[in-house]
Amino acid sequence: MRPSELRKQIAESEFTESTAGYCNGYVQANLVVLPQEYAADFELFCKQNPKPCPLLEVVGPGEFRTSKVADGANLLNEIPKYQIFKDGIPTEIVSDISAYYKEDLVFFLLGCSFSFEEALMQQGIALRHVEQRKNVAMFNTSIDLNRVGIFSGKMVVSMRPIKCKRIVDAALISAKYPNVHGAPIHVGAPEQIGIVDISSADYGDSVDIHADELPVFWPCGVTPQNALVNAKLPFAITHSPGYMLVCDIKNEDLRVE
Amino acid sequence: MRPSELRKQIAESEFTESTAGYCNGYVQANLVVLPQEYAADFELFCKQNPKPCPLLEVVGPGEFRTSKVADGANLLNEIPKYQIFKDGIPTEIVSDISAYYKEDLVFFLLGCSFSFEEALMQQGIALRHVEQRKNVAMFNTSIDLNRVGIFSGKMVVSMRPIKCKRIVDAALISAKYPNVHGAPIHVGAPEQIGIVDISSADYGDSVDIHADELPVFWPCGVTPQNALVNAKLPFAITHSPGYMLVCDIKNEDLRVE
Repeated sequence: MRPSELRKQIAESEFTESTAGYCNGYVQANLVVLPQEYAADFELFCKQNPKPCPLLEVVGPGEFRTSKVADGANLLNEIPKYQIFKDGIPTEIVSDISAYYKEDLVFFLLGCSFSFEEALMQQGIALRHVEQRKNVAMFNTSIDLNRVGIFSGKMVVSMRPIKCKRIVDAALISAKYPNVHGAPIHVGAPEQIGIVDISSADYGDSVDIHADELPVFWPCGVTPQNALVNAKLPFAITHSPGYMLVCDIKNEDLRVE
Repeated sequence: MRPSELRKQIAESEFTESTAGYCNGYVQANLVVLPQEYAADFELFCKQNPKPCPLLEVVGPGEFRTSKVADGANLLNEIPKYQIFKDGIPTEIVSDISAYYKEDLVFFLLGCSFSFEEALMQQGIALRHVEQRKNVAMFNTSIDLNRVGIFSGKMVVSMRPIKCKRIVDAALISAKYPNVHGAPIHVGAPEQIGIVDISSADYGDSVDIHADELPVFWPCGVTPQNALVNAKLPFAITHSPGYMLVCDIKNEDLRVE
């Protein structure tokens, strides 16, 4: 199925599932929606913390259709599930945010690690959470973000166990995708970045680390979501985790040499 | 001092020391000299094992002056110390090999890790053996080389302890220098590549690994030397370790984007 076809089914409520595993090869993006008064700070926050918060496109104010990542995708109803926040608290999950639309809303689309995971697997680097059909293991860290206005906090990382002999390959391959988190930020020694128990993920699903592997840590897209929640904005919207915008651009389009 | 000036002093026996630490910024190369009948196999062996055996220039037969790595360096007397081998056994160390010159000799110049070490240190990655003025720690491994004719064996690696948070940087930086061993081949877990005691180097000097570091392993230029010795050629010459050809090309010239 082509991304535009899937998005049409989503808009018509014919497709209501997680987008994980659909339209392989195409970029899937995270969404953050904010009133304009916070948008400049949030955009700068992303630019000051590009590894965990890789900006793919900013839409609006006064516009709700994409032009870069997809040809005219309607951000009000072409994502299967949206999470509404009020004062930093999740209130309801909806499949259409047209009722919440105001002229002053700004839509941020951020890269996600699905893109570099495809490249890793194509190069023969096995990913345990994919093999086990789990969500990737994610952890809070002690790594400070660069504060901009009310947006601040600590970096969240995703962890993938990688064989010692493929760690360098994994770093070199993912480094080619700076717009979807890029290279790892840490290898081994979880305690050095404030992770107390590597067997117990803070988000997603825990996975085993085998004797011939080390934990490898990448900046994670939960980081901007946490910064958003911590800022306790009166109103904000995100995609619901796993229910992403499926874009027209391909993962390979994000690869840089 | 410029490389051409240092080489002139070496040729005139005014400079007889190790070249380590001289002419910073310029490439230093390993030398292997063989009779022509083994040269084609040795060249192919290097090309089949490019990470440990990165070929910079092949000179001869019928020629003993460089044209690529240096402008007309005389390979018979512009290296401070040469090691003569007979039947794979080191016999004598000399400062001039003119007496051994025959028309059928072929000279191989191979990259050395000095080049990427400079780049690592410029990016703030400390190297313990440099700080402690030691030789880098090197180890035999269980990693098979690709055999060509009589040339075969196992890879020798150099080990540098790197802070967990700089391992990815170290990999990305050294990967830009494929002609001087390039990216590491293994991170952590020495036992997986056949290293029993990481605290006891097989060549060079052992160094401590701190709690916030992991051992990182790079392919090493001792590999082709070992393959040469193991092949038990009737006659061969190498540079004496640490006494290298100082080239006119700069480390930065070997950097690829």
